Amino acid sequence: MRGMDTLKLKLTVAYDGTAYEGWQVQKVGTGVQQKVEEALAKLFPSAPRLHSSSRTDTGVHARGMVAHFEVARAEFKMPVAKLLLAVNAWLPDDIRVMAAARAKADFHARFHATGKQYRYCVWNHPAADPLLRTQAWHVPRALDLPAMRAAASLFVGTHDFRSFAANRGDVLKNAVRTLTRCDLRRSGSLLTFIIEGDGFLYKMCRGIVGTLVQVGQGKIEPDEIRKILAHRDRRVAGMSGPAHGLVLWKVYYKKGAVKRPRRKIGQALA
Amino acid sequence: MRGMDTLKLKLTVAYDGTAYEGWQVQKVGTGVQQKVEEALAKLFPSAPRLHSSSRTDTGVHARGMVAHFEVARAEFKMPVAKLLLAVNAWLPDDIRVMAAARAKADFHARFHATGKQYRYCVWNHPAADPLLRTQAWHVPRALDLPAMRAAASLFVGTHDFRSFAANRGDVLKNAVRTLTRCDLRRSGSLLTFIIEGDGFLYKMCRGIVGTLVQVGQGKIEPDEIRKILAHRDRRVAGMSGPAHGLVLWKVYYKKGAVKRPRRKIGQALA
Repeated sequence: MRGMDTLKLKLTVAYDGTAYEGWQVQKVGTGVQQKVEEALAKLFPSAPRLHSSSRTDTGVHARGMVAHFEVARAEFKMPVAKLLLAVNAWLPDDIRVMAAARAKADFHARFHATGKQYRYCVWNHPAADPLLRTQAWHVPRALDLPAMRAAASLFVGTHDFRSFAANRGDVLKNAVRTLTRCDLRRSGSLLTFIIEGDGFLYKMCRGIVGTLVQVGQGKIEPDEIRKILAHRDRRVAGMSGPAHGLVLWKVYYKKGAVKRPRRKIGQALA
Repeated sequence: MRGMDTLKLKLTVAYDGTAYEGWQVQKVGTGVQQKVEEALAKLFPSAPRLHSSSRTDTGVHARGMVAHFEVARAEFKMPVAKLLLAVNAWLPDDIRVMAAARAKADFHARFHATGKQYRYCVWNHPAADPLLRTQAWHVPRALDLPAMRAAASLFVGTHDFRSFAANRGDVLKNAVRTLTRCDLRRSGSLLTFIIEGDGFLYKMCRGIVGTLVQVGQGKIEPDEIRKILAHRDRRVAGMSGPAHGLVLWKVYYKKGAVKRPRRKIGQALA
């Protein structure tokens, strides 16, 4: 099923991860991928398989997960602009396709991704925020933001991030990644970490945020980040932030990977 | 229970209104007020009654609901700074006391309120946002923002708002209110209405937002707002926005109504 007779479609998927065991599920529980594939199977008898840019853990959210699938041209009977509404009609309300577009025949959501942006929310106030309770990590005691910002800047650049990757049981061959952004924004009691890079190891974002919160609590000095990175050992870094504060915000591709810009699809519907 | 022997306490309460039949419940269902009073009864044997600045409808949220209660000095055995944590320990996680402070003996949460700010979120995108599905009204088709802003500005000032009040079955004696703000902010697909005034009629905010969305859809001309106000009849205004987009954001009081500034309490805990 390749070439002229097939179409490749790119989906941008948002979800509230609270009810799911992550994007992809191996054994028990329900994954977001499965829900989207079930919706696609309602529309296309061949029940296309989704290939995603990333996997997210249990409880992690997404605004910009990207996935592609292929479908026979003969099976695809609707205008592309209708695909978004058609898939969403079959999805539960905690998952939504936010954009759908034709992709080039050789496009691959994972292999062609050039970078990703994650965001992580911390609610820094004596009382938890009931409206953000499933989307922000509640840290009650006041944090030292200047120290956290100084530490965050030390993550930017090309480093071996082994100290910030959770052990998956396998040996990490290459743990060198380049972060282009590790910012901390504040709006009242809400702190938002914006972390962007060419790739991320397993639980790397949550390790970075957990460590930065410990810097804010005075438990780790900002300068220690350099030493922790140099150690290349997970046991020397700080704690991991909980899953529910994390959002896969955006996945980047080279221009031209997608046939029509996503915004155009939105506008066509609007 | 007045004067020297009693303390008056002011609470600022935030809640996710999704699971509640509003702040105050008359007959069936659970109200937020009841939950907070149950928590207070765990701390104070006299089970103090709460007096609130406002009532909110089923599904409406709050970040800054204000309520006061009185308790005998002999009963109040903790530092005021501990009250927030003590009440929160007995509350479900969709309700939180965000601030607690001593108030002057004659303070009344309702009668002394000088103004209120409501915010209303609209998610204006072809697909609903799964992370905002319980906190924003999903309006799929693109809206004419300049027209909506022009119409919004016509609500500012002193008007008879009878045309925007839901009929509660009783006759409204005085429907004149002064709005000091009716702004529309945009951040990507998220529109936030900020509506501030000295007082609000029943469902008035939702009537204003619903009407402004109809202006954005080209169904009502901005200039018609003047005529609708002049009609003083609910039937001439537009639709009501759904409850779940609305948040009681802040209640204003004259300076000095509270003995210690709320921020100080937060800092003491932090």
